[in-house]
Amino acid sequence: MDILRTPEALRKILDEHKLNTIGYVPTMGYFHEGHLSLMDRASAENDIAVASIFVNPLQFGPGEDFEKYPRDEERDAALAEKAGIDYLFIPSVQSMYPHEMRVSLSMNKRTDILCGASRPGHFDGVVTVLAKLFNIVRPDHVYMGLKDAQQFAVVQSFCEDLNFPLELIGVPTVREADGLAKSSRNVFLTEKEREEAPAIYRALIAGEQLSKDPSINTKEVTEQVKQLITKNTSGTIDYVECLSYPDLIAKEEPRGKMILATAVKFSGARLIDNVIFDV
Amino acid sequence: MDILRTPEALRKILDEHKLNTIGYVPTMGYFHEGHLSLMDRASAENDIAVASIFVNPLQFGPGEDFEKYPRDEERDAALAEKAGIDYLFIPSVQSMYPHEMRVSLSMNKRTDILCGASRPGHFDGVVTVLAKLFNIVRPDHVYMGLKDAQQFAVVQSFCEDLNFPLELIGVPTVREADGLAKSSRNVFLTEKEREEAPAIYRALIAGEQLSKDPSINTKEVTEQVKQLITKNTSGTIDYVECLSYPDLIAKEEPRGKMILATAVKFSGARLIDNVIFDV
Repeated sequence: MDILRTPEALRKILDEHKLNTIGYVPTMGYFHEGHLSLMDRASAENDIAVASIFVNPLQFGPGEDFEKYPRDEERDAALAEKAGIDYLFIPSVQSMYPHEMRVSLSMNKRTDILCGASRPGHFDGVVTVLAKLFNIVRPDHVYMGLKDAQQFAVVQSFCEDLNFPLELIGVPTVREADGLAKSSRNVFLTEKEREEAPAIYRALIAGEQLSKDPSINTKEVTEQVKQLITKNTSGTIDYVECLSYPDLIAKEEPRGKMILATAVKFSGARLIDNVIFDV
Repeated sequence: MDILRTPEALRKILDEHKLNTIGYVPTMGYFHEGHLSLMDRASAENDIAVASIFVNPLQFGPGEDFEKYPRDEERDAALAEKAGIDYLFIPSVQSMYPHEMRVSLSMNKRTDILCGASRPGHFDGVVTVLAKLFNIVRPDHVYMGLKDAQQFAVVQSFCEDLNFPLELIGVPTVREADGLAKSSRNVFLTEKEREEAPAIYRALIAGEQLSKDPSINTKEVTEQVKQLITKNTSGTIDYVECLSYPDLIAKEEPRGKMILATAVKFSGARLIDNVIFDV
């Protein structure tokens, strides 16, 4: 596996692979099994597998955890190599943003809900860096986790709108044995919070079961899930929402393909999780 | 030459040319020698030459000439074929914008001057459609006329910011024998206006000469050019500006590489022209 550190260096190498299919996994690093499942697929389903590690300042708001986002490049490189990655791209902020951006991208839809509501500009930063990364890597297939289901839906509409010639593949959330969704931010949980945190997924599963009741409405579902999370964890609920998927539109009643999603703030980490299901 | 009418059809054909270099000329059609000079170069300098005709509604403001922009597809197709174009892309508005855009792009720099000042949102529309077209065509080389020098500078910074893997090539303005810059909009000039219009270029050349005087400042240059245009044409001046090039920054004195640019409104057409020179 080669590590490349500038857009030019990676672009030059990938230009030699014009006839190969390229699978790509964009990440912020500090790999867990969720990332590795994406890399496994990118490697298995393409001639060439590329992953990137870039903690993108543009998608972090003031007071968010850009500075303290966990980083461990050496460990990540070893894991990526083991997962079959051919080229690992670790650009500096300077090489990605050599000067002030003269173009700005903003998403108008699906962003005032879920994480978008409490992280204004977050998805604008996400699609801006992805536009750059997609142009640098020119992947055929891009693998993203469905744990951040809103991100997946937003990026999908972004790619459609700008005709990016790639296929976006959503990969199911990988979980700990106790159900907690794998996340780089889990390391910031206290011991007590770590013990409580699986209650989030249990609450979502309970909400999914409730949704099958034809007499229930979505507000009742989300209230029940909120109560379960509040009762079983010390976290503060950012949101619990039950929306159509992938449109992410509010519905009075859970019908068709739905997503039940939540974000919960603990002392040192804000965790997200969701379940996607058919009613 | 093949004519393709949907993004999918063109993308499918171009996928067969992965090892070939692709030269690309994005246009709004109604070809004149300016367009043909771009196509000649695209054809001469690449394995495959692609041109597109798309009058992009997104870059026209209310009251501008989107509806009446001249169109002649049959004549254009014959000219493009003669100029060596392999694939001519003529998408419908519906196929380019199948639903309301969920992402919006806006340019923050170099747009509050020259044409940008009187056409708010114009360059945002230009870069949006180019992002789409560049992703559909995936060109190695893109040929654009320097008659719209601000457009060229804006698109250059846009491509840099989003890492589009292509080279943008600016091709000098093609002129009528009397000096008038070739433009699809020239057909809308009255006979009298057509006779006056070459005075625009003569005024710019006079301004270029004046700029060589080390004691002159840019304000004096633009005032002189305005007087010449006002005296010799019935048009209304939109702007005459003398800026550094390609940064497009206002300077007290003309020094280094400069652009002297103007837009003049006639009864049925707004014409632009410029000269780029070293002092």
